[in-house]
Amino acid sequence: MINQKMLELGSKRSIIREIFEYSKIRANEIGKENVFDFSLGNPSVCPPQEISDCIINLIKNENPTLLHGYTSAQGDQTVREAVANSVKSRFGCDVSANNVYMTCGAAASLSISLKALLNENEQVIVFAPFFTEYTVFIKNAGGEVVISNPKENTFQVDLVDFENKITEKTKAVIINSPNNPSGVVYTEEKIIKICEILNKKSAEYNHPIYLISDEPYRELVYSSVKVPYLINYYDNTLVCYSYSKALSLPGERIGYIIVSPKCVNSKEVYLAVCGAGRSLGYVCAPSLFQQVIARCVDTVVDVSTYKENRDLLLDNLTSFGFKCVKPDGAFYLFVKTPNNDAFEFYQMAKKHEILVVPCDDFGVKGYVRIAYCVDKSRIVNSLVSFKNLAKEYSLI
Amino acid sequence: MINQKMLELGSKRSIIREIFEYSKIRANEIGKENVFDFSLGNPSVCPPQEISDCIINLIKNENPTLLHGYTSAQGDQTVREAVANSVKSRFGCDVSANNVYMTCGAAASLSISLKALLNENEQVIVFAPFFTEYTVFIKNAGGEVVISNPKENTFQVDLVDFENKITEKTKAVIINSPNNPSGVVYTEEKIIKICEILNKKSAEYNHPIYLISDEPYRELVYSSVKVPYLINYYDNTLVCYSYSKALSLPGERIGYIIVSPKCVNSKEVYLAVCGAGRSLGYVCAPSLFQQVIARCVDTVVDVSTYKENRDLLLDNLTSFGFKCVKPDGAFYLFVKTPNNDAFEFYQMAKKHEILVVPCDDFGVKGYVRIAYCVDKSRIVNSLVSFKNLAKEYSLI
Repeated sequence: MINQKMLELGSKRSIIREIFEYSKIRANEIGKENVFDFSLGNPSVCPPQEISDCIINLIKNENPTLLHGYTSAQGDQTVREAVANSVKSRFGCDVSANNVYMTCGAAASLSISLKALLNENEQVIVFAPFFTEYTVFIKNAGGEVVISNPKENTFQVDLVDFENKITEKTKAVIINSPNNPSGVVYTEEKIIKICEILNKKSAEYNHPIYLISDEPYRELVYSSVKVPYLINYYDNTLVCYSYSKALSLPGERIGYIIVSPKCVNSKEVYLAVCGAGRSLGYVCAPSLFQQVIARCVDTVVDVSTYKENRDLLLDNLTSFGFKCVKPDGAFYLFVKTPNNDAFEFYQMAKKHEILVVPCDDFGVKGYVRIAYCVDKSRIVNSLVSFKNLAKEYSLI
Repeated sequence: MINQKMLELGSKRSIIREIFEYSKIRANEIGKENVFDFSLGNPSVCPPQEISDCIINLIKNENPTLLHGYTSAQGDQTVREAVANSVKSRFGCDVSANNVYMTCGAAASLSISLKALLNENEQVIVFAPFFTEYTVFIKNAGGEVVISNPKENTFQVDLVDFENKITEKTKAVIINSPNNPSGVVYTEEKIIKICEILNKKSAEYNHPIYLISDEPYRELVYSSVKVPYLINYYDNTLVCYSYSKALSLPGERIGYIIVSPKCVNSKEVYLAVCGAGRSLGYVCAPSLFQQVIARCVDTVVDVSTYKENRDLLLDNLTSFGFKCVKPDGAFYLFVKTPNNDAFEFYQMAKKHEILVVPCDDFGVKGYVRIAYCVDKSRIVNSLVSFKNLAKEYSLI
């Protein structure tokens, strides 16, 4: 009688959520320090001190009625100017405030963008492995999910598979780099080729295929690897950004959409974004944090902690015989399970009090995700258990 | 090619937005103090000092990683307990944290509730005059809007018209009391009769008809009038609340849904609410303000200023010969236009630098809304202009 799809969506807990609940129960039983929970992508690095200082400064010095008041639906003008100027100076592309739409975080950015672009039964290509909620947002916009399989081992885009997956119904492609759950950053070479294919296919089918760049992990990279700014590579691009990871503010729900000024009918796409936001019930992005962003737009958390964690985990797990994808960004380690059975691995690890996420739902079979956005001590203390797990699999 | 409905929704500015833009331009031309802008429902009363103190206290004393971290999708447990306890003690109904789902404000509460309940082409009854965005949210959930016309003059619900509008396809009814735009509070007597009709019709059609109580203006009442708490009157009730007006925090997007524990299959309805929130891209309500609400749950802005404004405006406009609906709550005065032509009145008022909202889109012809959530000085200074407008209409 009520909407059964919504009931199903609310009832079917994600595996991550299941593990999260188990973790709490287990911590009560044996002590939190004895549960090696690597399931959640919740930033462990403290938000920069500038954020706290900025909030206190705003509360003490600004008119509270204005500070907490409605902004225009697309965001406060000065905030959008600050974002546009930052993007312009960092990436050299000609973006203005009129291209920026402030949102309640990455999930909102994606939901709104998809709703703005898609018509019933149009297709969206996602590159496996991919964040499972993409499916939810694409379906909510009436679309159909098409999965493009990656190159085994590197988890870079398989260009042949990608090209084969494009049809007349393809409306958009989501790129998530650095990637959740693999930590892989797509190379500039791959990006250039993806864009070539998209241009060719857009011409062939005589309609634009949009590129949606979901990039909450943009600032979290651990080597000299470059994360190409897609607006500079492809005209019909929408950038979906969130400050959740870059500033460790995931609960505050603050991010943005940039509609590239080079999009075909860019103004109309922007207006459709405004319409989609309205339709989904987003009145404006939280006003206090809009002002925080305007003042801290180029601030980033200290990523050295994540890098240390990555190195510690990667080096040890590799030495134990596990096959890991080397992550250049984000805060996830993607590990191949010895028997190509992610659920079995998840359960065996659990016996050693290690909690990892089996990734079959992410579109790749036989892998688990280890979120290393945790205290270093948790990694250090878990190593004996990982070693025992390796022994159980006869890896050492 | 992109979604044309979204484009239309983003392109078609609401009349309120049009006036807002005009107001800014006109203020630049003749000075802000000479434009008597009564168009926006943006609270003018300062948020309580407790809010600012609470924010600073949280920032100074709480772990920032936790404070700004993800909460569970339905909201932090302690926050939901605080809300449930407040509702329980204020209204005497048996609500627990398990019935509370924290949201990004009233628009999110409504969008999520409608999406959770409705199937394609089911109907939702709204009582005119009604907030225009209801149409957007109902359509987004696949539903159809059915307007029930009010009793002329009092703008209370017309029970005969209401009963006639209920069909087999009726899934929900939205009650907004105190009402935007009329300021009317529905009497307990009316509420009891509405609920009787709903119970009768639910039995007749053999399915629950849900009551959605949209009540952001609950705390803004100016007389001894009682605002009935609908969970105490009808089992299949969802309460959609927002702190936008009660705490003057409209930009912060914080509110909640309560699914009455007495709903048929209450747990399933709650799960569908969780599913709908997920589907629309709401990850969690802003985390800092969740904690603020937990600590200031029974705080309310000083409404005496709004009462003073109401009395000043109502007394003067009535003395000038305007026919006004006496508002017991919210911060709007609903005025009958002398020629039963709201747009004409809007334009004539504009010549006197008075900006009001013509309300044909709110489902009632020939009325304008005057938002008195403004500095008292604006009302005082506008009175000569209102008098001149009355003269132009030969009212005095």
